[in-house]
Amino acid sequence: MNAHVATPTVSAFAWVPDFAKGQVRDLRVRWALEEAGLPYRTDLLSPGQANADYRRHQPFGQVPAFQDGEVDMFESGAIVLHIAERAPALMPTDPAGRARTISWMFAALNTMEPPIQTLGELDFFHADQDWAKARRPAMVAWVEKRAAELAQRLGDNPYLDSDRFTAGDLLMTTVLRIIDRTDLIRSQPRLNAYLERCTGRPAFQKALAAQMADFMGSPPPGWG
Amino acid sequence: MNAHVATPTVSAFAWVPDFAKGQVRDLRVRWALEEAGLPYRTDLLSPGQANADYRRHQPFGQVPAFQDGEVDMFESGAIVLHIAERAPALMPTDPAGRARTISWMFAALNTMEPPIQTLGELDFFHADQDWAKARRPAMVAWVEKRAAELAQRLGDNPYLDSDRFTAGDLLMTTVLRIIDRTDLIRSQPRLNAYLERCTGRPAFQKALAAQMADFMGSPPPGWG
Repeated sequence: MNAHVATPTVSAFAWVPDFAKGQVRDLRVRWALEEAGLPYRTDLLSPGQANADYRRHQPFGQVPAFQDGEVDMFESGAIVLHIAERAPALMPTDPAGRARTISWMFAALNTMEPPIQTLGELDFFHADQDWAKARRPAMVAWVEKRAAELAQRLGDNPYLDSDRFTAGDLLMTTVLRIIDRTDLIRSQPRLNAYLERCTGRPAFQKALAAQMADFMGSPPPGWG
Repeated sequence: MNAHVATPTVSAFAWVPDFAKGQVRDLRVRWALEEAGLPYRTDLLSPGQANADYRRHQPFGQVPAFQDGEVDMFESGAIVLHIAERAPALMPTDPAGRARTISWMFAALNTMEPPIQTLGELDFFHADQDWAKARRPAMVAWVEKRAAELAQRLGDNPYLDSDRFTAGDLLMTTVLRIIDRTDLIRSQPRLNAYLERCTGRPAFQKALAAQMADFMGSPPPGWG
């Protein structure tokens, strides 16, 4: 990545297994950039390419990392916030509205995502293991509780901050989609309508198509 | 809570079980306020007091919620960021330094905390269950991998952003402390020294003492 270009650069994977396509976290950043109307370049990593050089930008070897002029940062939530601070389409500029947006951003990633991601991994990777079968009912109950609380707060509003889409909705949508193969979210009519509303946005569709189009690399040895 | 007072208000619990004392997430906000040199009031909730009125401020019934003038927000990470934006003691003001701090804040809560919190819950609540015994080795390996990556990045620097303490260190410290009863963090000399350095700060000690002093309520029916 080159810090001297004007166009922001997002790192992404050139290949992932099928279950991860449309789920990799650079989708959040692409979506935010599309909502903000900002062009970007991608820095595509081959599987296993998170080498020492890349880790100078992303200490955990994950995607996305992001460069925007002198800014060199990582973590999808942090990058979406960086973009939202420059895009009123993603965050109100008054202090109270800004604080609400940031509250929902952290709620998506720190309250909703942990149980949802755990349940998703349990179903994707461990469904046939005894420990996972024993653990699953409690994880489902936890996710259902959080989903009900979210639906209750959403009420009849189109978005979490009433009638205005924000970066909080953007992150929340990507979190709820992690378990889209279950009916835990879709069975809540308000959350189902909310997901349809958010994923129906042209910026989301464009970001999703761009991530899918970038998966042109070869799988690493040992993968189909 | 009253939005018209000048002093920020943090919600906290008046009672929690012993294992949770010193771990409840309002500690993060108290610590940030102490580092920033800002006074605050607490709004202490009795166990089970997360009623409909409180949920208008905190949709999931958790602590902390926070009010600061017209700002009414929730999620410990969001609140710490709100404070850090007003306190150069917690975040550099130049765009590149600000982006680094925010990256580490999200890394603490979205990359490090999920496996650490899962391992902590497994040991605190489920240690004697067969599924937990079967699951634990993989969780330990995950935490050890993240801890090694963090230690590698920290190197010989005192803090994540080189020689400057930021809100990223504040959140990372509270996350690493979740599994302080294991030796997974303390067995890494750099991380052990880092934790000693961060928790040795007068602002942390003051915040911890304040949380402990507020646990004066009665346990709910059914608790010892």
